[in-house]
Amino acid sequence: MFGSFETTALLQTLFLIAIVAEAMTAALAAGKREMDWVGVCLLGCVTALGGGSVRDVLLGNQPLTWVQHPSYLLLTGGAALFTIAVARYMHRLRNIFLFLDAVGLVVFTIIGCNVALRLQLPLVVVVASGMITGCVGGVLRDILCNSIPLLFRAELYATVSILTGLLYITGLNFDLDHDLVMGVAMLFGLTLRLLALRYGWSMPKFVYGGNIH
Amino acid sequence: MFGSFETTALLQTLFLIAIVAEAMTAALAAGKREMDWVGVCLLGCVTALGGGSVRDVLLGNQPLTWVQHPSYLLLTGGAALFTIAVARYMHRLRNIFLFLDAVGLVVFTIIGCNVALRLQLPLVVVVASGMITGCVGGVLRDILCNSIPLLFRAELYATVSILTGLLYITGLNFDLDHDLVMGVAMLFGLTLRLLALRYGWSMPKFVYGGNIH
Amino acid sequence: MFGSFETTALLQTLFLIAIVAEAMTAALAAGKREMDWVGVCLLGCVTALGGGSVRDVLLGNQPLTWVQHPSYLLLTGGAALFTIAVARYMHRLRNIFLFLDAVGLVVFTIIGCNVALRLQLPLVVVVASGMITGCVGGVLRDILCNSIPLLFRAELYATVSILTGLLYITGLNFDLDHDLVMGVAMLFGLTLRLLALRYGWSMPKFVYGGNIH
Repeated sequence: MFGSFETTALLQTLFLIAIVAEAMTAALAAGKREMDWVGVCLLGCVTALGGGSVRDVLLGNQPLTWVQHPSYLLLTGGAALFTIAVARYMHRLRNIFLFLDAVGLVVFTIIGCNVALRLQLPLVVVVASGMITGCVGGVLRDILCNSIPLLFRAELYATVSILTGLLYITGLNFDLDHDLVMGVAMLFGLTLRLLALRYGWSMPKFVYGGNIH
Repeated sequence: MFGSFETTALLQTLFLIAIVAEAMTAALAAGKREMDWVGVCLLGCVTALGGGSVRDVLLGNQPLTWVQHPSYLLLTGGAALFTIAVARYMHRLRNIFLFLDAVGLVVFTIIGCNVALRLQLPLVVVVASGMITGCVGGVLRDILCNSIPLLFRAELYATVSILTGLLYITGLNFDLDHDLVMGVAMLFGLTLRLLALRYGWSMPKFVYGGNIH
Repeated sequence: MFGSFETTALLQTLFLIAIVAEAMTAALAAGKREMDWVGVCLLGCVTALGGGSVRDVLLGNQPLTWVQHPSYLLLTGGAALFTIAVARYMHRLRNIFLFLDAVGLVVFTIIGCNVALRLQLPLVVVVASGMITGCVGGVLRDILCNSIPLLFRAELYATVSILTGLLYITGLNFDLDHDLVMGVAMLFGLTLRLLALRYGWSMPKFVYGGNIH
């Protein structure tokens, strides 16, 4: 539907790598909160698949991905468990995981945009769908770990997702080749996120000290 | 469907004013947590539109309001951003915002009741739908800010919503004129909320010190 | 559909007892956070009916249980209010409530499995559906009380639910008598949970001290 067979296969492969990477970083967050093995497993599944699930519930896009492909539950839950065994070596792989997390962000964003495009929703909703898919998994992780979602304070996380989505739909609207547009949007988003991580770029913060209620 | 053309237009106008006011107060809450500009924007959207979204997801009432009217996303996100610029003057407008928040509570409640009435749901569910629409946005805001929802402790917030809904459906059940019933229910809810704010009325608290688990 | 008339009636009776018990323990949790009476009432409803609601929303199984049976809202809300009156005597009944909570866990799990079986979903999703129904109510309670969900750290809670579901669908797959399989699965789950409570069994914890982001 969107893009050639090869692009679809590439996107699918990147998706699988990304959900494994998300589940593994979520497992480390669970370890910091001393959760038990089942909690680690569940937090991995929720973080990796939660963004897509919230998107599908909000857009009425049934059945959900993991209901159609229950193997994703086993894959992400298994990756989280596996993390317990290899956690002591993971700090050496920190940069790889940050890279995979950035890949996940843009892949999830494009997939989320595609879902909304297929449902023929308005363009603002397409961008929102991409951002929900890319960012909400991490928000759920942070809520379940009882901390303020990083999303609201981290280095351009949501911004990268929004700009990637905007670039993608703008390119498609100019009737450019789908695969080209998708590649450019993903490379742009990936580069921006990695630069933000490298140089500590972030959006300006809004600091307010008054009373609100 | 429910009420005359003029009432519907009035309700719609009040709805737009209310979501802007909710987004702006949410932006101040974001500022207290030092969120970045994108976080402010997102928290504004979620707070203003979250109650209706949760209602529609629970009642299976697809598509959601902001999917049909994506301009609401831009309006609430924009209002939240605008708040950053004018925050320093907002404490002077504190009473106006408390008033608009109270208007929002009753307007959201009536709209939520109407959605459930249109779906011909049982009366208990109609009241619940009104309360979810009126109160859940603020609950989501408080969860994302990592505090115990104010709703569970604030001045008659949920109570006002429940009583407004009960009065509304009771009036409709007596076959009274819709516009009259709606006006009376809204005035009653608004007055009760403002009196509660003015005199610090609140429901009795339940304080329990024992062990539970 | 699943099981004889008598079993269905028994399951339904146990369900009603379980939601009342869940609402009452949630009310105590609300009391520890000094919520007001309306907050107590709402937390009771959300805890008792939230697991099934999240399941139905995720599986697209509309309408939700409490929309079809609004009396459940009154029953659980009423049970939570009633708890305020009798809280001072409840520590004497602590063991009864722990027992009823364990009954609720296995009953909710079986009901959740049955919903997914009726929708002819894959077996992994059937087990997930049972676990969501059994465990998510408590997770919502803990999020609304602003604490890390107990589920991720408590005595075999999610584990019991998963094993009960696995035993149930394995038995059904061997074409054994439904009522027998269900009874055995429930007894097994109940026994395991009570033993875990009695002897403080828990899953090993994953403790990780490194940096993640």
